[in-house]
Amino acid sequence: MSRIDGRTPEQLRPVTIERGWSKHAEGSVLISFGDTKVFCTASVTEGVPRWRKGSGEGWVTAEYSMLPRSTNTRGDREAVRGKIGGRTHEISRLIGRSLRAVIDYKALGENTIVLDCDVLQADGGTRTAAITGAYVALADAVTWAQGKKIVKAGRKPLTDTVAAISVGIVDGTPLLDLCYEEDVRAETDMNVVCTGDGRFVEVQGTAEGAPFDRKELGSLLDLATAGCVDLATLQREALAGTQNA
Amino acid sequence: MSRIDGRTPEQLRPVTIERGWSKHAEGSVLISFGDTKVFCTASVTEGVPRWRKGSGEGWVTAEYSMLPRSTNTRGDREAVRGKIGGRTHEISRLIGRSLRAVIDYKALGENTIVLDCDVLQADGGTRTAAITGAYVALADAVTWAQGKKIVKAGRKPLTDTVAAISVGIVDGTPLLDLCYEEDVRAETDMNVVCTGDGRFVEVQGTAEGAPFDRKELGSLLDLATAGCVDLATLQREALAGTQNA
Amino acid sequence: MSRIDGRTPEQLRPVTIERGWSKHAEGSVLISFGDTKVFCTASVTEGVPRWRKGSGEGWVTAEYSMLPRSTNTRGDREAVRGKIGGRTHEISRLIGRSLRAVIDYKALGENTIVLDCDVLQADGGTRTAAITGAYVALADAVTWAQGKKIVKAGRKPLTDTVAAISVGIVDGTPLLDLCYEEDVRAETDMNVVCTGDGRFVEVQGTAEGAPFDRKELGSLLDLATAGCVDLATLQREALAGTQNA
Amino acid sequence: MSRIDGRTPEQLRPVTIERGWSKHAEGSVLISFGDTKVFCTASVTEGVPRWRKGSGEGWVTAEYSMLPRSTNTRGDREAVRGKIGGRTHEISRLIGRSLRAVIDYKALGENTIVLDCDVLQADGGTRTAAITGAYVALADAVTWAQGKKIVKAGRKPLTDTVAAISVGIVDGTPLLDLCYEEDVRAETDMNVVCTGDGRFVEVQGTAEGAPFDRKELGSLLDLATAGCVDLATLQREALAGTQNA
Amino acid sequence: MSRIDGRTPEQLRPVTIERGWSKHAEGSVLISFGDTKVFCTASVTEGVPRWRKGSGEGWVTAEYSMLPRSTNTRGDREAVRGKIGGRTHEISRLIGRSLRAVIDYKALGENTIVLDCDVLQADGGTRTAAITGAYVALADAVTWAQGKKIVKAGRKPLTDTVAAISVGIVDGTPLLDLCYEEDVRAETDMNVVCTGDGRFVEVQGTAEGAPFDRKELGSLLDLATAGCVDLATLQREALAGTQNA
Amino acid sequence: MSRIDGRTPEQLRPVTIERGWSKHAEGSVLISFGDTKVFCTASVTEGVPRWRKGSGEGWVTAEYSMLPRSTNTRGDREAVRGKIGGRTHEISRLIGRSLRAVIDYKALGENTIVLDCDVLQADGGTRTAAITGAYVALADAVTWAQGKKIVKAGRKPLTDTVAAISVGIVDGTPLLDLCYEEDVRAETDMNVVCTGDGRFVEVQGTAEGAPFDRKELGSLLDLATAGCVDLATLQREALAGTQNA
Repeated sequence: MSRIDGRTPEQLRPVTIERGWSKHAEGSVLISFGDTKVFCTASVTEGVPRWRKGSGEGWVTAEYSMLPRSTNTRGDREAVRGKIGGRTHEISRLIGRSLRAVIDYKALGENTIVLDCDVLQADGGTRTAAITGAYVALADAVTWAQGKKIVKAGRKPLTDTVAAISVGIVDGTPLLDLCYEEDVRAETDMNVVCTGDGRFVEVQGTAEGAPFDRKELGSLLDLATAGCVDLATLQREALAGTQNA
Repeated sequence: MSRIDGRTPEQLRPVTIERGWSKHAEGSVLISFGDTKVFCTASVTEGVPRWRKGSGEGWVTAEYSMLPRSTNTRGDREAVRGKIGGRTHEISRLIGRSLRAVIDYKALGENTIVLDCDVLQADGGTRTAAITGAYVALADAVTWAQGKKIVKAGRKPLTDTVAAISVGIVDGTPLLDLCYEEDVRAETDMNVVCTGDGRFVEVQGTAEGAPFDRKELGSLLDLATAGCVDLATLQREALAGTQNA
Repeated sequence: MSRIDGRTPEQLRPVTIERGWSKHAEGSVLISFGDTKVFCTASVTEGVPRWRKGSGEGWVTAEYSMLPRSTNTRGDREAVRGKIGGRTHEISRLIGRSLRAVIDYKALGENTIVLDCDVLQADGGTRTAAITGAYVALADAVTWAQGKKIVKAGRKPLTDTVAAISVGIVDGTPLLDLCYEEDVRAETDMNVVCTGDGRFVEVQGTAEGAPFDRKELGSLLDLATAGCVDLATLQREALAGTQNA
Repeated sequence: MSRIDGRTPEQLRPVTIERGWSKHAEGSVLISFGDTKVFCTASVTEGVPRWRKGSGEGWVTAEYSMLPRSTNTRGDREAVRGKIGGRTHEISRLIGRSLRAVIDYKALGENTIVLDCDVLQADGGTRTAAITGAYVALADAVTWAQGKKIVKAGRKPLTDTVAAISVGIVDGTPLLDLCYEEDVRAETDMNVVCTGDGRFVEVQGTAEGAPFDRKELGSLLDLATAGCVDLATLQREALAGTQNA
Repeated sequence: MSRIDGRTPEQLRPVTIERGWSKHAEGSVLISFGDTKVFCTASVTEGVPRWRKGSGEGWVTAEYSMLPRSTNTRGDREAVRGKIGGRTHEISRLIGRSLRAVIDYKALGENTIVLDCDVLQADGGTRTAAITGAYVALADAVTWAQGKKIVKAGRKPLTDTVAAISVGIVDGTPLLDLCYEEDVRAETDMNVVCTGDGRFVEVQGTAEGAPFDRKELGSLLDLATAGCVDLATLQREALAGTQNA
Repeated sequence: MSRIDGRTPEQLRPVTIERGWSKHAEGSVLISFGDTKVFCTASVTEGVPRWRKGSGEGWVTAEYSMLPRSTNTRGDREAVRGKIGGRTHEISRLIGRSLRAVIDYKALGENTIVLDCDVLQADGGTRTAAITGAYVALADAVTWAQGKKIVKAGRKPLTDTVAAISVGIVDGTPLLDLCYEEDVRAETDMNVVCTGDGRFVEVQGTAEGAPFDRKELGSLLDLATAGCVDLATLQREALAGTQNA
């Protein structure tokens, strides 16, 4: 089967990770998975939310949003509607959990890092691009905090890298990193978040059409695990480079 | 390992499904998984939301909520706060998707069924009890709609049964149907939604502590699949009985 | 005149009061007035709202809500609409005032008790059932607080019992405890809240059709006072029993 | 007993009713009960809310609000808080019900009249002043609508006058038309709405301290009925005059 | 050209400033510019918002609102809609900035003055009437605060007077103080806020039709400056009088 | 005087205008005024808001927003707070008015164009960059609509170009195009919107410190007019180029 954009089933779209895209944020990344572009910033503040004060532990949280015209048809602005939709809530929570999976709260100390992931252009996989990009912004923010001695000397708040990818079954074939057109046609859709050592942080599979069986689930996990390994390499390379934006 | 309440790792809590718990709703169920009690009603209305008009197809959606004192400590009422929290949104959407997986929209015709799942008492597994109970309320509502000829003669809007169960790894051991105390201690937490034929509608696994590997994921899916088979049997038995409340 | 359900004008519907209906709440009751069922929980917390701190006095408040399908036609969920309706506000305030009428704030000490009254099924008289049931939940919560020494030894925060009933004029006849069908047809509708000694805490009468005169008002108050005496007996009996749910 | 402002127990505060206080509204009144001043406007629009279309019947509704500094201490503006408080809801509903009690919907035809009652200065009795003033604004608006033939010739949408007054028991003495200072000290507080023929539209009595008995209730109703008769006279006189503002 | 109401182009409408219109507020004014009537109250509280604590400096802010029927057609109440519109926000901010331009925060000390400007009747120029009237209410509030020693002896929190007027080009002619009918027809509309010494605090000009050139801007500023001088005189006269309401 | 970044008083910051920055929007621009970067998209939809239907005329509106970390310190997300702040409202309205000043509604026909201006990075002048960039996105959207025959052949919906710039007085010197640091120190701050022919669409000047006089106002307008001429040239050059992103 040839995919819409000529990729093989197990191939990622072109991924770019530009660091230093904001002069204000402690970490910032413009990440693209093909035509999907997400702007991720990491903001460090000393102190933690009230319920965590005095624990000696830090906190990491995330907010996700789509610009109104990031999609093919303009969507209402959630600030104008005055309420955040369920999908936005769901993805913000997923990004936060995914990043917290590689955070050592004790090593972070009583500091908070907020990741903002704003989708500038959407073409499928916005949440996985967001997680993958936010990790890089987070890593830069942690380095910044270490430089400022906000994180104590010798402490390593990051325990591993974390990346995410979507997989799905389209016309019976398991595919990696679905673009929007594939996503719409997928019978089963799964988002997988892996640490750099290939273990799972989140597995969220949904049957959009017919239910899926154990074997299909297995094929999807194989694809996703390999994809995440590739993304982890790209993250390490991005972080090894000089800040490029 | 002996569990808090003496169950074996692969054992469900006592499950009860009482039908006909509301004199108004077209389908209604009080379901309990141990101390977790969820009141599920199915409301049938002729017509569909605007975006679906003229399609000849129906719609099924769900709303989940916890009573303020369904938990150990009283929570704020979302109506009073004026906004729905992310968790509530997430679970409402999960219940809706799960039930839609067994609906033939064409057979349902341009009718809408809303499932309300209100947690009266929570002790872990509220979303899985909600899905499992809501299916039974939905089945009663469909039967009602067939009786009223709102669904055309000979049409079968339900394509299968659907049930859900939580699984998790606690102290290294995979366990079925976690109660609240086990849920808090779980390193990995997964909710699995299966159709009556044992295939997956949703798989949502989250590492609460360390990431989990493929083998652990496999054990959890084994447990969950078996649990859902048991729940499907209980659903069929409940529907075979006379309306009991 | 024979009433819809065969009652005499001065007869209550069958009333049941089940205590201990929640394993979490300090007091909890499922009360039914005929087909009207309200789930009442009492939640005790140490401390009082900011404006009352340092006064040595406690606080009691209430929140009322109807489940979306507690009525014949499904209503919107107030949390989803993002605002509480006027009727809900009005009834929550009425329940709070009614219960505070039998509270000695000094004896309660700086503790707060919140009564949640959630209507599971509505058939007229939900606010009066809520007050009557909430009193029993409140009494259990006070006993619990005395047992935990949160309320000081020898202090009696409850000064009396309190119950409520609706009365109305239907086709010229004053009736006690209107069911929904009667309520809709009533020319005058009144809710009366009485203490155990037969005095009034609240009297709220409304002409739905023609205005009412002093004599009609008198007949309604006679009916209501007698009804509240019966309810006070049922409350005492319920509290004298062992926790029955 | 001498009252704070030297009145006898059964004496109203000085009442003024200025008509024609707005050049835009179809009816408008500035009413004062002593230092309580409420600005009431009646707005006529052809057509009725969606749920009433095609019925041939009109609709009357009301909105009440207090200016932030109408009280001794500045209150938050409800528009700024983004939600209407329970008290505001309750009073808006009371005013609407009171005025609808003297409306013949058929005679009004499919037209809507909205009464806005904005408290410019509060000193107790704002809801009763609002009802009493809103009636006069409503009467002017009906006359306007008759003049414009929006209400058909020969139709009389108003069936009677309506007025309201507060009564309460202060230091054991029943008093008419409480000012703020008396209201705060009242053991029992009652608002009574009467038609011009002396019958009741609403009776809302609340024990603020000890419960009240049947005899006290009787004394309060006697006072209120007489007070409403006086207000009806003042309303008639105001409407008989030329528009005075 | 003769204006709608017979004024010359450079003539203000009749302006009245009634002080002492509220018995509760520390300063209060009913100001009218022709048929535009705005009720302005100034509320003094000791202390400042959190972000200003410990600065030794005070704060002045304003809230503007229109009563629903202050206009020809009834508008929705912002409290009922649950959100404040952009125009309201814009004008509230303008009033606050205008008054802060004549405040010496140090001399005010850590006290807050809130100006509430509620439009009772609108006929163009509501924001300029609000600023002009609010200044007088503010001056009375400052005098009150000096009397109460809330402002320290010898401190003068007001550095000058401030007033505002609208100007516009209608049918090619620059006009002062537009009434509603003129405002609707204006090609260019400008609001100018001046201190008593004739300097500008705010200049806000908008082309409603064709853009305007430098010469037209000049003519408008000439008119506005002269108008503000007249208003400053009226403000001084009002403040020199005894409290007149 | 040498400016912070070495510019002369009458010098713009480096301005870049990249067209075609979104694959979805009908017009899109990433504009930068120095470190201020605003992403502007223009979305065309056939049809107009309800109040304009049947008029034969189109509509243009705008929404402005800042990403939470576009500023030095992270701000709350307005969607999360559930309400739009006054400043956001004010700027959205300003952008809409500015663009409508160069639109011929008749020529546009019953079509709507929404401009979304999202600030990715802020360093002063975000509203002026937004207007200047939004014009270019609007021009591309109009060209698109002409190509699609949504705008009728021969119709020219744009009557001129429009651009905006800030000016201010810092330490007594009038400066063009203030960066954030200069803006904070400015005694007077003005935003000026001009059409391509050098006339004014909006002039908004505010005294942040001492009031300003007529001569200062003149100097600021001189600077701004010249700056807008330069921006108009840059807009024309950008539109003359091929789509560059």
